[in-house]
Parts: sequence; C-alpha cells; structure tokens
Amino acid sequence: MTERAPLGVAVIGTGRMGADHVRRIHEVTSGARVVAVADVDAERAKAVAARVDGCTAHTDPAAALAADGVDAVLVASPGPAHEATLLAAFERDLPVLCEKPLTPDAASALRVLEAELRLGHRRVQVGFMRRYDPEYAKLKALLTTGQLGRPLMLHNRHRNVASPPFFTSSMLVTDSVAHEADATRWLLGHEIIAVTVLRPTPSASAPDGLQDPQFVVFETDGGALSDVEIFVNCGFGYQVQAELVCERGTARIGDGHALVTNMAGRWGGTIAQDWTERFETAYDREVQAWVDATRRGVVTGPSAWDGYAAMAVCEAGVRALEDGGRVEIDLVDRPALYA
Amino acid sequence: MTERAPLGVAVIGTGRMGADHVRRIHEVTSGARVVAVADVDAERAKAVAARVDGCTAHTDPAAALAADGVDAVLVASPGPAHEATLLAAFERDLPVLCEKPLTPDAASALRVLEAELRLGHRRVQVGFMRRYDPEYAKLKALLTTGQLGRPLMLHNRHRNVASPPFFTSSMLVTDSVAHEADATRWLLGHEIIAVTVLRPTPSASAPDGLQDPQFVVFETDGGALSDVEIFVNCGFGYQVQAELVCERGTARIGDGHALVTNMAGRWGGTIAQDWTERFETAYDREVQAWVDATRRGVVTGPSAWDGYAAMAVCEAGVRALEDGGRVEIDLVDRPALYA
Amino acid sequence: MTERAPLGVAVIGTGRMGADHVRRIHEVTSGARVVAVADVDAERAKAVAARVDGCTAHTDPAAALAADGVDAVLVASPGPAHEATLLAAFERDLPVLCEKPLTPDAASALRVLEAELRLGHRRVQVGFMRRYDPEYAKLKALLTTGQLGRPLMLHNRHRNVASPPFFTSSMLVTDSVAHEADATRWLLGHEIIAVTVLRPTPSASAPDGLQDPQFVVFETDGGALSDVEIFVNCGFGYQVQAELVCERGTARIGDGHALVTNMAGRWGGTIAQDWTERFETAYDREVQAWVDATRRGVVTGPSAWDGYAAMAVCEAGVRALEDGGRVEIDLVDRPALYA
Amino acid sequence: MTERAPLGVAVIGTGRMGADHVRRIHEVTSGARVVAVADVDAERAKAVAARVDGCTAHTDPAAALAADGVDAVLVASPGPAHEATLLAAFERDLPVLCEKPLTPDAASALRVLEAELRLGHRRVQVGFMRRYDPEYAKLKALLTTGQLGRPLMLHNRHRNVASPPFFTSSMLVTDSVAHEADATRWLLGHEIIAVTVLRPTPSASAPDGLQDPQFVVFETDGGALSDVEIFVNCGFGYQVQAELVCERGTARIGDGHALVTNMAGRWGGTIAQDWTERFETAYDREVQAWVDATRRGVVTGPSAWDGYAAMAVCEAGVRALEDGGRVEIDLVDRPALYA
Repeated sequence: MTERAPLGVAVIGTGRMGADHVRRIHEVTSGARVVAVADVDAERAKAVAARVDGCTAHTDPAAALAADGVDAVLVASPGPAHEATLLAAFERDLPVLCEKPLTPDAASALRVLEAELRLGHRRVQVGFMRRYDPEYAKLKALLTTGQLGRPLMLHNRHRNVASPPFFTSSMLVTDSVAHEADATRWLLGHEIIAVTVLRPTPSASAPDGLQDPQFVVFETDGGALSDVEIFVNCGFGYQVQAELVCERGTARIGDGHALVTNMAGRWGGTIAQDWTERFETAYDREVQAWVDATRRGVVTGPSAWDGYAAMAVCEAGVRALEDGGRVEIDLVDRPALYA
Repeated sequence: MTERAPLGVAVIGTGRMGADHVRRIHEVTSGARVVAVADVDAERAKAVAARVDGCTAHTDPAAALAADGVDAVLVASPGPAHEATLLAAFERDLPVLCEKPLTPDAASALRVLEAELRLGHRRVQVGFMRRYDPEYAKLKALLTTGQLGRPLMLHNRHRNVASPPFFTSSMLVTDSVAHEADATRWLLGHEIIAVTVLRPTPSASAPDGLQDPQFVVFETDGGALSDVEIFVNCGFGYQVQAELVCERGTARIGDGHALVTNMAGRWGGTIAQDWTERFETAYDREVQAWVDATRRGVVTGPSAWDGYAAMAVCEAGVRALEDGGRVEIDLVDRPALYA
Repeated sequence: MTERAPLGVAVIGTGRMGADHVRRIHEVTSGARVVAVADVDAERAKAVAARVDGCTAHTDPAAALAADGVDAVLVASPGPAHEATLLAAFERDLPVLCEKPLTPDAASALRVLEAELRLGHRRVQVGFMRRYDPEYAKLKALLTTGQLGRPLMLHNRHRNVASPPFFTSSMLVTDSVAHEADATRWLLGHEIIAVTVLRPTPSASAPDGLQDPQFVVFETDGGALSDVEIFVNCGFGYQVQAELVCERGTARIGDGHALVTNMAGRWGGTIAQDWTERFETAYDREVQAWVDATRRGVVTGPSAWDGYAAMAVCEAGVRALEDGGRVEIDLVDRPALYA
Repeated sequence: MTERAPLGVAVIGTGRMGADHVRRIHEVTSGARVVAVADVDAERAKAVAARVDGCTAHTDPAAALAADGVDAVLVASPGPAHEATLLAAFERDLPVLCEKPLTPDAASALRVLEAELRLGHRRVQVGFMRRYDPEYAKLKALLTTGQLGRPLMLHNRHRNVASPPFFTSSMLVTDSVAHEADATRWLLGHEIIAVTVLRPTPSASAPDGLQDPQFVVFETDGGALSDVEIFVNCGFGYQVQAELVCERGTARIGDGHALVTNMAGRWGGTIAQDWTERFETAYDREVQAWVDATRRGVVTGPSAWDGYAAMAVCEAGVRALEDGGRVEIDLVDRPALYA
C-alpha cells in the first residue's frame, strides 16, 4: 500500500462494538475503508458488509484477513476469540487494533505478547480508548508538565446505570476496572504491584448475588495508590471520574459541566447514560490515530504489553475479590520492544 | 446606656419582616433586646411582644419610641409609614435601622435626608442587606484589591419563583431592582446617571398585564454599565447573581454550588426558593453590625443618602419603563455628612 | 460524481483559515479531498497545494473552480472577494461552503441571495460554525424539547484575549457580534428587528480609540431580547458563553469546566486562548456535515438568507454604535427557497 | 439560673481555640457570657479575662468551675487535661461542651463515659463541630429524606496546607481523621468495625519521617465503606470534601464554589487556607446550639459515647497505620443513656 491510498481494514466481529467501528471507519475516519468483515453469525456479517461498497462478508476471521485489499485488522469479536485472530494476523504481519481485553486471561495475553516478540516488531494496539479521551489527555498533559509534582494518589469513580444480565462479580473487575488498571498504569507511568478488593453490602438495585459496588485499591511500584469505586448499577448515569492527587495540587476530570440549566429548584446538567455518549470522541480519535500511524508504518498506542499487564492485574483483582485480601501482582520481565 | 448593657430596641411594624427581626434580635443577635414593638394591628403587635420577656406592644410608633428602655429603632413598617417614624426618631435622636425603601419616592427621601442634616449627625442606616452578604462582600473585597483592574460592566440576574398578587410592573423596578441600584452604586462606587428599561414579551407565567421579565440598563458617572435581568415569575427558584467585568478579569457570585448531587441522569444542586434562605446570614450580619456600631455610638452602614439615591434611580426607572426610553437621573448635591 | 467517490473540493483563499480547512479536509474529514486551491499570493497557494497529492495551485479563483475534479467550493478568502467567487460558483452550479461574512455588506449579500434565487435551488452554506458546536447544539436541542418554555432573553458573552492591530470599533460588531447575531436568529428562530449599542468607558487595555468593550442589545420579532457583551481585549482568555432565559428555566453554555485543578489556594480550570481551541470540534463537524450533505446532493446548513440577515443586522449595529441610539432593521421579504 | 438570664460560662484553656471561644461567646453568641477562664499560664488567662467585663481568671480549672455565676463549662485545654476537668464538672453537675478529643485514648474516654453514666443524665457535648457545618447538615438532611436510598460508600478528602512541627504520623489519624470517624458514624448512623491504613510514598513536601498522605478505609456495621484521604501537607489549601454514594445517587459537599473568577487564562475560585475560615459558621452554630439547649436544660449534641467511639476508632487506626493490616474495633455495649 502507498501512504496515500486509503487503508483497507478487515473488521472481525460485527456485534454492537464491531458494527459501530465499521460505521466509524466508513463515515468518520478519513483515509481508511472497510474491505472485509467476519462474524460467526453470517447474516449479521452480511448485513453490516452491505452498508459499505466493496466490503466482503465472512464467517471465518482467517478468510477475512486473506481478502483482497486487507492492509490491517480491527478485532471486535468476543475476548476468547482474540488470540486466534491475533496469531493469524501476525502470520500475515498485519497491524491490529484489538478491542480490550487483549485476551481473557494473563496466560493467553502472554502467549500473544511472545508471538509478537517472535515477529520482532510491534503489530498490536490494544483498545484502551481512554488514552484518547480529551479529558484524560489533558490530565496526562498536566501531569507531564510537572506543575503538580509527583503523583501520590489517584481516586477513580466508574459508574454505570445498570449491568447487563450476564454480568458477574468478577466482571466488575475484568470488564470495568480493567480500564482503571490501564488508566492508572498510563497516567502514573507505574506498574501495579498489589490489589485489594473491598466488598460493601451490595446495593438493593444490584441483581441477586452480584457484588456491586466494589472498592478496589491498587498499589504501584512508584509508591502511589489508586482507588476505584466501581458501581455498575448506580441507576443515575454513566460516569467516569478521576482525581489525581500530587505533591503540589490535585486535578479532576469527568464532571462534564458543559450545559448547565436552572429549572424547578435545581441547577445542574445531564449525566451521560452510556459510554458511547461519554467517549464518542475518544473512539473517533483512537481509530483515526491508529489509521494515521498505520499508514506511516508505525504502532504508537497501547501495546500488547499494556494488554498483558492489565490482564495480570485483573486476574489478581478477581482473586482479591474472592479471597478478601491483598494480592500481589507478578509480571514477567518487560521486553525491550515495549520499553 | 453604657456600652455593656444590651441595646434596647423598638421594632416598628410586626409583619413578616418585622416579626423576623424581633426573632433575630431575640435569638441570634448578641448584645441587644427588643423592648417595644408597634403595629397598626394591635393583636399582631401583642402576639409578637408576648414572645419576648418585658417587651411592650403599641399601635402608635411614637408611643413605642417613648417606651422605657428604648435606645434605638428598627423600622419594618410599610414604606409610606417610614417618613413619620424616621422624623419621630430624629426628634428623640435615636439611631434607626430602616428597611428599604427609605421612603417610597425621591422627594420624601430627600425630606428625611434634610431632617438628618439638620440633626447634624448620621442616625439612619438603610436596610440594603446585600452589603452584608458574604458573597457580595467577597466581590467587593476582590474589587478593592485592584487585581481585576477598573470595573467596566456589571451583569445582574434577579429571579423570584413567583410574584405576589399585588405586584405591579413598576414594583419590579422599585421593589426588586432597587437592590441592584444599591449594589451597583456600592460595588462600583459610582452614581447612576441614566436608566433604560427594555420590555421583552412577558412570560406566559406572569399574571396578566405584568411586564415580567424586564431588562434594565444603568449607566454610571464612572462610565460603567450595569444591566439587570429582573424576572419575578421565573418559576424555578430565587436566584441573585452578579458578574463584574473588569479590565483584567471577571468575577461572578450567586451560583451557590455547595451541595452537588448525582441522581437520575442529572448532576447539580438546589436553588433557594426565597430570600430568607439565600440571605439569612446577610440579615443576621446586618443586624449584628448595626447593634455593634450603635453601642459604639457610630453609624456605619448604608446611609440616608444611599436610600435617597436608590429612590431617585427607581423613580427614573419607572419612567423609563413607562416611556420606553433612556431617563437621566438628577441628584441633589451630596452633603458633606455623607461624603 | 457518484455518492461513493470522494468529493473534490476547491479551496479559495489559503490564509490562516483557508490553510486550516485544507488540512482538515485532508486529515480529518472522510469522503473529501482537496483538488485545487487559489490565492492571490501564488507562493502561498503553491505551498499549501504541495501538502496534498494531486492538488493544483491557482491565483485566479475562477481557474480553481474550473480545475479537473472540482465538485464543490470552500471560500475562505477575505470578505470583499466573496461575491465574485460565489457568482462564479453559481455559474458552474457548484455547492459552496462560504466562510462568514457571506459578503461585507447587506447590499452585496442581497445580490448573492438574488443570484441563488435565479439559480432556483440552494447552493450556499454560510460558515456560521457555532451551529455545529456541541454545546450550542445541546442548547438548541434543549430549547426544541419545549421543557424550558418560550425563550424570553439570551445573555451572550464574547471575549477575546486581545484584538489584532487592524481591529476597528465597527469590527467588534461586524466581525465578532456577527456570530451572536446568527446565534440569536438560529437559537430563537426569530429575526432581529432592532439593535442598540452601549459604549462604556473603554478598558485601559484596549488600543487607543477602540471602543472596547461594547454592550449590544438585539430585539427580535418574537419579542425576545438578546444582549451581547463583546470585549476583545479582556486579557484573560477566549470565552464564548450564552445563557438562554425561558419561561420555565434557563440554560447556560460556555463554562467549559472539564478539567478542574486545586493548586496554590485556587480551584478551577483553564480558559481557552483562542477560537481554534474552543471551536475545533465545531469546525470539524461543520465541514464533515457539509461534505456529507453535498454528496447526498442537498444543502442543509446556514443559508445565503442567514448570511444576508446577519449582514443587515451588523450594518444596523454599526450605525447604532456610531449614533448612540436604537436602529431598526429592515429585511427584504424572505424568499420561499429559504422558508 | 432562669431561662432568661444569660448563661454563665467557665472556659477552661485559653490557647488559640479557647480564646476564640471566649470571643465568640462574648461577641457572637446571644444569651451567654463568659464569667471565668482558667489556664495553666496565668498571664494568658488574665489577658483573655480582661477583655470581658466581670470575668475572673484562674490557673486551677476547679477554681474556675467554683467561681460565682458559673452555669456551664467549655473545655478547650489540651486533651490530656480533659478527664480531670470533666470529672470535676460532673461533681458540680455542670453541662460541658468539650473540644475533641473527649480524652486522648479509648480507656480514659470510657472512664468519662462511665462517670456520666453514674450521674444518670447526659452532661457532655463533644466538639465535633462538623455536625453544625451547613454543608454537612444539608448532606445529612438529604440522606434522611431517603431520596438517595441506603448509603453504600462515603469518600472523604481532608487536606491541610502544612502540618505544624510537632505533628506525628499517628496524629494524622487521631487529630485529623478523628473528624471523619465521627462524620462517618453521624452521617451513616453506623458504628465503625474495622480500619485499614494505606501508606503511599510520602510527599516530598512532608517533613522527614512523617507518613503523609495516608489513605484510611473504615468498614461499618451497616456494611458501608468510608475512605479518607488525609493529606496534611498538600500545599494548596484547607479542603474538606465528602461524597456520599447511595443506592440511587451520590451527593458531594466541600467544593465551595461561591465566588468564581476569570483571570489570566484560568477560571475558578479560592480555597480556604485554614479551618477557621472554612468552619467559622459551624463553630458559631455549635456554641449557639449548646447555649440554647443548655438554657432549656437538655443536651442534644455529640455525646460522650460519640467521643469514646471516635477515640476507639482512632486507636485502632494508629495500630493499623503501624502494623499495615486491617484492625477490628471492639466497643463496649452502648448504654441506654446514649441510645
């Protein structure tokens, strides 16, 4: 491919997230086009492909990767299917944007990482899209100026209106807090070395048997703490907040005060109801950044190492949730490729 | 009276405001006690007096002023009754805290002012209690530091949930905007020299025939503008806001963001529903300041000159409202006593 | 052109704004590409064209319009040059996105409008990009729900850090308040029928002879008022705020509270320093919306009528500024094409 | 004493806090007067007494309690001296407002509590003045309405500009977090059953050897969590914030947004620099409430039980800080007097 030709993308998985990425690349992202999609549900794949001129539909991801004009792969299938697709993409040396989690456990994440190491160059960007959110980006930029001094603590709030029926207590850690695990690592530039999960009496609004909310405390190798309130049945909105406490000041994002009204005895604003509203721009930026970097032949975003480290933290988190204690995290040595 | 003995106060008028001042002096203010009350409604006066040990009830204000132990007078009767009580107090050389308006028109205000001039010393403090509001006080203090530079504009919002049945279009100026007339004069340290009143189509929530809202523009002798949105049937709360625009920055009060909630898709806080809630502390501080100054034998608050100037502005405002044009304000020369 | 082929755009004018639009179409906007640029400065045109594969450079706008592959025109040249380019585009029946002002005065704006009427279908979208700002869009959407009731007043603040050396007192109206003229018309759905400009003593920070700030009051045919503080040497930041006051509540945008810090005795956030920062997303959305509509063969944004009406308001505003009184606005009848 | 006579108060301890209480009772509180003061420093006691007519100075607290006209006692001496004064007051059956801590450890607090039990009626109000802060009061009132549902978590921030030289790591728990221990118990209506103290790497701004900040997690017998960031060398201001997370929403206090400025690229407001500024009104209300209740012959504020429970929590907190684990709290049975 030349740098000027649009990037041909195969999108693996055409569920809610995959179909949205197809729409994004087709309508929002400049310089890319979807040339193939794959889904185990053939009808779904066909329906999504039909919206894009010249896009072919497949049931086998490998077939989509082999389709004409495929320069790169976006993986949005369920987590357990990621490993096979990633390895297939490596065989063809294709760049991949892989939705989080990289894979559903630390062992498989490590296998992916080792496969990429054998390839000898980075091919995977993991879909930690908060790094592309304008507010998180401002927080990171502010920290980098050094004005606030060294980071000491990070207080995170992560709230959803209601959890889907299949959500388990462990998934609050692996599906939701995984974002804070990455945000903590990325913002602070530290690795997480231990995790504790506290279990208040569940909310009456939580489904029977679901431990919701939870309060998670990460300890980092830089001596900082990062605490996370995860509350997936808060009822009132989708809210992601972070307050960074440093030696000379604090900074907070996520209040989202743009439109303020006065009505009927109340001032204030609306709270987003889901992540598509809150992080729409972040997703757009993420995909555009990946397209642009890919066309330049480089990989710049969250790496397989970031995906592996987040998975290792989440696995420890699930153990901490179940055992009620503090669980230490043991990472393999960081390969030079991810330095 | 010695400085240590509690100040004996006669309260003239025992309606909503007068009764509240009796309660305040009795329960909140240290160093003062109510010794006499007067009201044209004898039963109401008796009921209020009965709550305070040793307090006598009268129907004639002059009798209340002559009662045993009266050191000072608080006037909370209707505006048209103020002049007579003020002149009676001057005869006895008693200090007076007089609820605004000083009197209901500029001519009578000028007569009161001239009577005080003949007395040769200040005896009247006018009840412009916004000067005692902690937020207005912070705004004034900030302006005084000079950090913001010279004031250029003042944007005021003055909103009530609903107007009482007797409210007329003129009263939006004379009863409500009178506060902004004083706040403008006090904050900026300028006299107001012209007023324009703009009349948008009235709100459907306003009673038939009431010009509500109005938009008032004051021009000052310091070259500043002060605009006032007065909206007495806004429906949603009682809100007093002011943004001061200066050469190097702006400052805003009145958002009142103390308690912020997240619920049902909204973040925000409550808006006070009336002035007793919003300005409770201001009233408390006003009365306490007056008691303390009085016991030291001085008068420190808004003067008869301030009461007269506000009345002259409001009279011009009513003409501007009725004629639709810009009306200039012509004050008598400022006596040295009020320099 | 088919709907699927990228839209070929000629960009007329390659100054700051034009060059930024070239970059935007090239890097941000999907579905469009720049095929020709024109500028009276041949070197500047060449430099900008060189950044885009297959883009030709011209000094004559007509030559750019005639270039191979031109499907549409984006006009970003100085205002006085707009009319000729617009008429040339009409001859070729090309869709045009024309930066504001449509033309520099109401008479020439009317000529453009009449030319489009002769064409018989809409071809021009005017660059009032606030309509694409997410906050303004939320404000409009909220008003449209009817929850707030009928609009009564709109309070606007428009502040720039410092004005460029060539800025005149009239330009505060024609260059800056022009945005509020359009925002008022668009948000309220009213035409503006009169304008008054008040002149406080200029700020010491304003260049000698510049009437800055100004306070502009618009009256609309729907009985609403819209006041504008325009202050182009405020020193502290670029700030665009609007508070809509309706029968049942108010709504405010422009506070921009996303990232809040605590440091050295202060809490708060940063204020953007210019419009590129504040309205980056609005410009992106504007261009994308235009591209998308154009490829569907329709025109959906601000029309030549909107451009003409804004110009007529600004002309009256300049007279009001100079004469110190209230100036009524007289529009021609609204053609059915712009109903 | 009759209900109408001013309450005669002996103030024990005339350091910073005691002298401030003398001033408050003398100048702010209606219905009370200081009749005796005591301090081990005779000169300091005399200097403070000299400011109040008829107030006697003592070095022995017992002598002050025995002075003519003493109806009640306010204890503001150092913590280790509290027990003796409290027991002396009990012997005279005098009502006491005792600054926190009730006593410096749980064992002595329990002795005081048992002495009050022998007396058979409540005589002690502990100085947990946050219960009188308008914002905390609003938070409690909101929770009591039930709108938010059951409380699940309470996130507390407690920040001081800088710690005094004598401050130790334990004192962050016993002097500072003691307030959150009481606020947690009072707001939630739960007892605290376990405490964990996490120790991030200390800030470079903290004196050598001081563990600052700390992150404290309380677990309650109602199944709620309450976490406290205590940071006594934050550098930027004095800040007390609390966010209550309930089943149907959250509520936050402590942002203190009253006066908002725009200047030099920043919007925002000032942060108080110490507790006298932030909690001035709370102290005033606390003393007035105590005076009023006392004159009615009742005790209504935080009890000896509250003082004991807070001390037990703090003792466990110090152990948790030192040992690095979770420490359970074991209270004696709650006597009926404190039900």
